[in-house]
Amino acid sequence: MVSELQLSPSWLSCTHMNKHHHLLLRGASSLTVSLCKRSGPTHPPPARPLFPSSGAGGTTTAAAIVSNFFSRHHHSTLTSPHHHLPKTARMSTTTPSPVDLIEQSKRLAAFQSVTAHLVPFPSRTRIGIGSGSTVIYVVEAITALVPPTTLSTMTFYPTGAQSEQLIESAGLNLQYINKLPPGTLLDVCFDGADEVDPNLNLIKGGGACLWQEKIVATSSKKFVCVADFRKMSPALGTMWKKGIPIEVLPLAANRVLGELERMGSLGPKVRPGLPGKAGAVVTDNGMWIVDAPFRPLRVEGTSDKEKGEWQVDELADALIKIPGVAEIGLFYGKNGNQAGEGGAQKPVEAYFGMEDGSVKVLSA
Amino acid sequence: MVSELQLSPSWLSCTHMNKHHHLLLRGASSLTVSLCKRSGPTHPPPARPLFPSSGAGGTTTAAAIVSNFFSRHHHSTLTSPHHHLPKTARMSTTTPSPVDLIEQSKRLAAFQSVTAHLVPFPSRTRIGIGSGSTVIYVVEAITALVPPTTLSTMTFYPTGAQSEQLIESAGLNLQYINKLPPGTLLDVCFDGADEVDPNLNLIKGGGACLWQEKIVATSSKKFVCVADFRKMSPALGTMWKKGIPIEVLPLAANRVLGELERMGSLGPKVRPGLPGKAGAVVTDNGMWIVDAPFRPLRVEGTSDKEKGEWQVDELADALIKIPGVAEIGLFYGKNGNQAGEGGAQKPVEAYFGMEDGSVKVLSA
Amino acid sequence: MVSELQLSPSWLSCTHMNKHHHLLLRGASSLTVSLCKRSGPTHPPPARPLFPSSGAGGTTTAAAIVSNFFSRHHHSTLTSPHHHLPKTARMSTTTPSPVDLIEQSKRLAAFQSVTAHLVPFPSRTRIGIGSGSTVIYVVEAITALVPPTTLSTMTFYPTGAQSEQLIESAGLNLQYINKLPPGTLLDVCFDGADEVDPNLNLIKGGGACLWQEKIVATSSKKFVCVADFRKMSPALGTMWKKGIPIEVLPLAANRVLGELERMGSLGPKVRPGLPGKAGAVVTDNGMWIVDAPFRPLRVEGTSDKEKGEWQVDELADALIKIPGVAEIGLFYGKNGNQAGEGGAQKPVEAYFGMEDGSVKVLSA
Amino acid sequence: MVSELQLSPSWLSCTHMNKHHHLLLRGASSLTVSLCKRSGPTHPPPARPLFPSSGAGGTTTAAAIVSNFFSRHHHSTLTSPHHHLPKTARMSTTTPSPVDLIEQSKRLAAFQSVTAHLVPFPSRTRIGIGSGSTVIYVVEAITALVPPTTLSTMTFYPTGAQSEQLIESAGLNLQYINKLPPGTLLDVCFDGADEVDPNLNLIKGGGACLWQEKIVATSSKKFVCVADFRKMSPALGTMWKKGIPIEVLPLAANRVLGELERMGSLGPKVRPGLPGKAGAVVTDNGMWIVDAPFRPLRVEGTSDKEKGEWQVDELADALIKIPGVAEIGLFYGKNGNQAGEGGAQKPVEAYFGMEDGSVKVLSA
Repeated sequence: MVSELQLSPSWLSCTHMNKHHHLLLRGASSLTVSLCKRSGPTHPPPARPLFPSSGAGGTTTAAAIVSNFFSRHHHSTLTSPHHHLPKTARMSTTTPSPVDLIEQSKRLAAFQSVTAHLVPFPSRTRIGIGSGSTVIYVVEAITALVPPTTLSTMTFYPTGAQSEQLIESAGLNLQYINKLPPGTLLDVCFDGADEVDPNLNLIKGGGACLWQEKIVATSSKKFVCVADFRKMSPALGTMWKKGIPIEVLPLAANRVLGELERMGSLGPKVRPGLPGKAGAVVTDNGMWIVDAPFRPLRVEGTSDKEKGEWQVDELADALIKIPGVAEIGLFYGKNGNQAGEGGAQKPVEAYFGMEDGSVKVLSA
Repeated sequence: MVSELQLSPSWLSCTHMNKHHHLLLRGASSLTVSLCKRSGPTHPPPARPLFPSSGAGGTTTAAAIVSNFFSRHHHSTLTSPHHHLPKTARMSTTTPSPVDLIEQSKRLAAFQSVTAHLVPFPSRTRIGIGSGSTVIYVVEAITALVPPTTLSTMTFYPTGAQSEQLIESAGLNLQYINKLPPGTLLDVCFDGADEVDPNLNLIKGGGACLWQEKIVATSSKKFVCVADFRKMSPALGTMWKKGIPIEVLPLAANRVLGELERMGSLGPKVRPGLPGKAGAVVTDNGMWIVDAPFRPLRVEGTSDKEKGEWQVDELADALIKIPGVAEIGLFYGKNGNQAGEGGAQKPVEAYFGMEDGSVKVLSA
Repeated sequence: MVSELQLSPSWLSCTHMNKHHHLLLRGASSLTVSLCKRSGPTHPPPARPLFPSSGAGGTTTAAAIVSNFFSRHHHSTLTSPHHHLPKTARMSTTTPSPVDLIEQSKRLAAFQSVTAHLVPFPSRTRIGIGSGSTVIYVVEAITALVPPTTLSTMTFYPTGAQSEQLIESAGLNLQYINKLPPGTLLDVCFDGADEVDPNLNLIKGGGACLWQEKIVATSSKKFVCVADFRKMSPALGTMWKKGIPIEVLPLAANRVLGELERMGSLGPKVRPGLPGKAGAVVTDNGMWIVDAPFRPLRVEGTSDKEKGEWQVDELADALIKIPGVAEIGLFYGKNGNQAGEGGAQKPVEAYFGMEDGSVKVLSA
Repeated sequence: MVSELQLSPSWLSCTHMNKHHHLLLRGASSLTVSLCKRSGPTHPPPARPLFPSSGAGGTTTAAAIVSNFFSRHHHSTLTSPHHHLPKTARMSTTTPSPVDLIEQSKRLAAFQSVTAHLVPFPSRTRIGIGSGSTVIYVVEAITALVPPTTLSTMTFYPTGAQSEQLIESAGLNLQYINKLPPGTLLDVCFDGADEVDPNLNLIKGGGACLWQEKIVATSSKKFVCVADFRKMSPALGTMWKKGIPIEVLPLAANRVLGELERMGSLGPKVRPGLPGKAGAVVTDNGMWIVDAPFRPLRVEGTSDKEKGEWQVDELADALIKIPGVAEIGLFYGKNGNQAGEGGAQKPVEAYFGMEDGSVKVLSA
């Protein structure tokens, strides 16, 4: 189900700019961009090169691609070609550290996701912006890639205080999800995740903002996930071991804990607020968070609930119906491609910045 | 499915006190107690007569039965046989007004429900107490019927501020549902409803306390509904026309309204707080209430969602999964008899005070 | 302290448009505009007539003035000179009903307050918008009087859900008070009141929004009150008899009630939420409202706390310090003219629509 | 103002048991119990020795005193004289570690405070229980010292979730402060502090529970502070450098930050919720916490507000009146001895467990 493709930057430079790109990406259910040596000639980009080739042959790092892009796009001079780039992403003649590589790949992932899902930048687009370290690069990408006159017509909907600050400090038009008129959808939502399985089921809620995140994601025509390689997982519960975050009414916490144990959760707990707050974390909605660890959740096939082994969809269905549960950190079911009228929880695609500087894409 | 039985007071006096009573009531899926003329001899009650016959033949009103009970139970004197009864329920030589009759029947319904579901008054019972005008009589009944030493071992769990006051002013042991240890259940919960259909599906939430009410009800081994005749309905949405109360996260209100309209709700609205509060009602949980009218909900058979015609269970399932919905005012699915481990939303029985002074019982 | 001036419309037409107007109004501590017969010639308005004279001699009603204004300002045709005016304010050849008169005077009060405090309509003005039936006319006045290009640079800060809707439905730029940068002030805030005493002390909070209202008012360089004649009072507690609204932490309600009684409050009570909600009103901040009636509050002179007779400032000072009190509905102390750095609670001026169609102005 | 007394255990054994003790302690504004060598004969305790002398002459550590007490009180056998003591407090033949010494002194402080303020253990006492590591020993002391039949008549009021658990796990009668009838006071409240100055002004709120803590403290006839030596300070802001915790309405956070900076606060900040929650800490009351550092607060004498130098009372008075501030973490003004009707914020006494195993008492 997951395949890997080695793509040269020259491919990126030409295909990411046209509409075939989308189909191409859809053809591969998983795509690794490893930015290997380019051999062929540089195709002249039709309008504006998003990921142009480097000037000469040789291995091109993600940073180089990104910085090359910026040097053209912004017409910056030789003396300060990357003045606005964060340190980790600046082109360097020395070997990048592993941390640099990861940051570069996360950034590349963000640029790629924006390219794939916002081109050709229609005006009046409504965009959900989530939180997480990779989403920061999504906002950077949007600011860099979208023409200013178009950008000023776009509106950005945060999933919480963190993304609200992100939107504001980037000078973008902020709007709140409660202002989205009934029956209307955001065009796309970019958000991170705490864990992603091969079927694009997610765990979210490490930052206790899952309720608003799910509302924004499911208010979008499509949801695009951006993250780093540590969030890729064969089965939910493998990498994120703290448990599925569940937002609960405080007076029902005990009751929910009892239900969870009966369902096979291994030591569910109310999340503590320390060091900032004694007692439980209180969410922005006045609720508590229960973290409910389960055995790794099966993507498909049979489950054995007696042993506490659940399929994602089954578990999600059972959890959301427990009285006292306000919302759950499992994003499951349909994605935006399948659900015509919105309301889809799963992303249509997930972009991961990899350890080696490459980007891996998981598509529905 | 619904049958009516005419029962004489003498039947009440002997059968309500033994364990067969329960089976008898279960045998009838619906029971009307119309307090007709008694013809046979009075069976001596085995231990303590709850609803004894009147001394002589003739029509016995609900008030007479209740007051007779009290006169024996409390050993009250002739001079003040009903000193602690509320005005509307006092025996009168004049014809009772319609209002008196209804109050008498509600009270009788409460006494009957307590008799049926608390006898033989085991100690350490944990009881949920809801709200509504009939529940007031439930508390009165418990106080009157349960021996004081047993009563002092019982604990009472309110569904909101109103029932909390009720419990406290009756001098009963108050405890909060959040203190119920995980995995433990209340023994029984008595609560009202805004509408009851023949399958014992309920609409609740007219008082904006539905979330806590559902938590208490589903934390009980069985849930007993007490109400007056105005709440009986052939199909939910027939009598209670304001709509299904839905507790929503304020920032998702618009989004939920849009979903509801798409599902066929006829003019769903955020409930206003006036006169006490400008803007929306805020619940005790910091949420808003959306009242979503639907066409009368089908109990069984086919539905036609395209026309906005829903079955109760289908609709409830769809509503609870809308992101932004915290809880819904539909009580549906299993009842305590069916759901071994609790978590049942539907009552096992509903007692209605009727317009003519009688009590109607609807059993699962 | 309160004097009344009879002013002709011609005075209004010329003086309201220049900067002297402000000083003139300040000279009179109370101003009644009774719109008597104009005798002199119409002074040609320097730029745009806000309250022009009627075409011929004779008594000019508030409605006539307003409608004349609109007919010029909007260049409307003969066929539909007042197409956008609410019904009650439309010019009529028949005698206006008392209700019409009041609505006309409230509207006139709103137009006058906007004229006095927004002219010459500087761009980038930040304006607080409160709630109440007169504030509706303030928004209408702003929309009507401010040139569109200037209006698009102005930002409007609501005090609650009601004024938020008002701002949005008028198509004005909405912003939230939490977005006002630290150290910045709104230029002016227009809000209603439940009662106004001669020293411009206010009672607010009938709509349970007092906390946000006080934050917006005290975030403004000056606060302008608009209301109708029923809110004018010789002493707070004379007209508004329900008590001073106090926003309290629910778990401290009993404690605050006890303190209030000790201080002489006559039957303070937690405000009930019915019919929309059983139990207490919950504010948008998750608090409860206690309504605390006191004997009419003295504006100055001696007080006798033992008898429960308080001066406004003394009482406010004592109330705000009760632990458990979040905010109080008394607006007292300094006004924007006195408090250079903002933080003033009292209005600099209050405009009242009077029963006879006139406007009364109370100035600090 | 602060004097130190060297007291022998024998003094403790006899004076702590009678009523003169209280006066003696009041005579010293500060009392250090350093547990030196006892020289005189052991006075036979009149009823029950709380802090009896050790069996032989020689230096007596706090641990020895406490453990001796327990060995008598509980009639424990030789084989297990200290079976229920936590590890750190067990008598040891080896030299106690510094950590042991501090724990021992905190425990001794707790026992001393309970002895001083609860003896002769009147029944039906209502006791506030706060949080903090020393309060744990207060609950232990109460459980150990109060006769069970009396203990069962006492009621305990927590200041938050932490102390609620403490009360429950000790099997004490829990009650909530909102259930205290209007006009009634708790008899005494034991709580910790983040910093204590020589005049017994406090900073509290490190755990974000300051609002409830202040309500419980000021609902008590007297408030007794228990803490360790790290909380003793010559001036508030010297030891606790994170700033005065201030509970604010989220939408007013910016506005409050601006006011605080204007008042001279050095970098006030909204407290972050990480790692459990992205964005701000949300309190149990739905508020945010602003931590506002000020220069060390003067206890008395002149202040220079222009330089940001404040007296405690002046600053507290200014802070509580900022609109948007719900409550402040300064406990100041009167103490229970001065304030006849309660409502006092300052403790009447503070007990500190010292580094050397001794207890220091600071009295009003």
